[in-house]
Amino acid sequence: MPDIDNHGNFETTTLATAAVLIIGDEILSGRTQDINLTTIARFLVPLGIDLLEARVVPDVESEIVAAINALRTRYSYVFTTGGIGPTHDDITTDAIASAFGVAVEYDETAMEILAARYKPGEFNEARRRMARIPRGATLIRNRISAAPGFQIANVFVMAGVPRIMEAMLEDIRPRLEAGVPVISRSLRTNLPEGRIAAPLEAVQKAHADLRIGSYPYFAASSPGGSNGTVLVVRGRNKADVDRAAEEIIRLAAELGDAAVPEKSG
Amino acid sequence: MPDIDNHGNFETTTLATAAVLIIGDEILSGRTQDINLTTIARFLVPLGIDLLEARVVPDVESEIVAAINALRTRYSYVFTTGGIGPTHDDITTDAIASAFGVAVEYDETAMEILAARYKPGEFNEARRRMARIPRGATLIRNRISAAPGFQIANVFVMAGVPRIMEAMLEDIRPRLEAGVPVISRSLRTNLPEGRIAAPLEAVQKAHADLRIGSYPYFAASSPGGSNGTVLVVRGRNKADVDRAAEEIIRLAAELGDAAVPEKSG
Repeated sequence: MPDIDNHGNFETTTLATAAVLIIGDEILSGRTQDINLTTIARFLVPLGIDLLEARVVPDVESEIVAAINALRTRYSYVFTTGGIGPTHDDITTDAIASAFGVAVEYDETAMEILAARYKPGEFNEARRRMARIPRGATLIRNRISAAPGFQIANVFVMAGVPRIMEAMLEDIRPRLEAGVPVISRSLRTNLPEGRIAAPLEAVQKAHADLRIGSYPYFAASSPGGSNGTVLVVRGRNKADVDRAAEEIIRLAAELGDAAVPEKSG
Repeated sequence: MPDIDNHGNFETTTLATAAVLIIGDEILSGRTQDINLTTIARFLVPLGIDLLEARVVPDVESEIVAAINALRTRYSYVFTTGGIGPTHDDITTDAIASAFGVAVEYDETAMEILAARYKPGEFNEARRRMARIPRGATLIRNRISAAPGFQIANVFVMAGVPRIMEAMLEDIRPRLEAGVPVISRSLRTNLPEGRIAAPLEAVQKAHADLRIGSYPYFAASSPGGSNGTVLVVRGRNKADVDRAAEEIIRLAAELGDAAVPEKSG
């Protein structure tokens, strides 16, 4: 597991970490706007699992294999989305099996779930493909579609359709070892980043265990320049997070503006 | 440059390729939904530059350096977003310089642009930080904010704010060597993937130079199962793309349904 060694933040000894692998030509061609990454990220926050990397690769087996092997050896958990349907471009299952060096087999339970779903004669070969999982994997069920995902070792293989993926996360949740959640507080101020930067850096330096992010925001109507800044304090110790947030509120006041809480994230 | 060697598609000899590196804790925490990847992907399609990978990394210098070095040596172009503002968490410039093994310097033109933007006394040290670029880099201008991005070798470093990033793409466009654009045709049918999969695979096999993607769609109101499928044919030869699209229209008709054009992507 990697240490986050730049700003010297977070305790790193018992961190549960995660990566996301988004699989699909449709994301890289711009056809489809991915929203699964954000969903998974928000799912992991209360579990105390730190999402530290994401990758997007095309429907190319060698690319999927290389990415899976890079990520599964580095992070506690890997979550993949996409490529487990019935058509020829759904190659994720075979790629994952190849990454783990195991065969792909028809899973009996998956066959039953899928068979029950279709009318007689409709459970054709293409649909049977969705019951194929790598040897040693366990199913990930979902309440939307019959087709399961699967877990093999620390890799969770999910559908790309957001509604189905979300349902699969519910089946995965009890399998994850939760850590200490990161707490965050977000403060919004009308001050531009350039005015707040120096005192904000001092707050960051005084709280090496926290990560303080600064995000300018822009109204669509603004001709140029930002309309203000959202400051996000993140850390595992609530007292420290609160203390840093209070310092930010104070420094904004000293600069002649308020810093008011907004929905944190 | 990598060959796409799975489905045996695309001519690979003179391909211009690209990767995107999204930098920022706010994406991995789920605070911010990235839209820049889609914007860059759609920008590259008409230029005939194939986006083959994307990564998201946190605001940690070692992570940015590792990702940049992995991507810039593998693809024709790398586009980064995020981390070039005035605050302590904006570390992209230093990380890129470190990846290239060069120093960071105050750029004279960037200093002038920024100085002109602020009232006397407001061009403070934090704002001057935005004029720092790696030695040997050239500026990327934008019409929204004064703060420039920069290009060093095949790496284009852009702001994370979508409006500013889009403006920077306009400055980058003439610097890119365009290739032969990929043409796509999208067809929508009410047939589910499972019914169309087998004949669709035959079309793919008959057109090894094309990539045919199959994407189920779901209405929010659908209790389960898909409402149909969008089939996307992509390739560099318009006659081939059209031929495959016609074959798909024909096979949908044979299955008792229409496949009608939709906005391609």
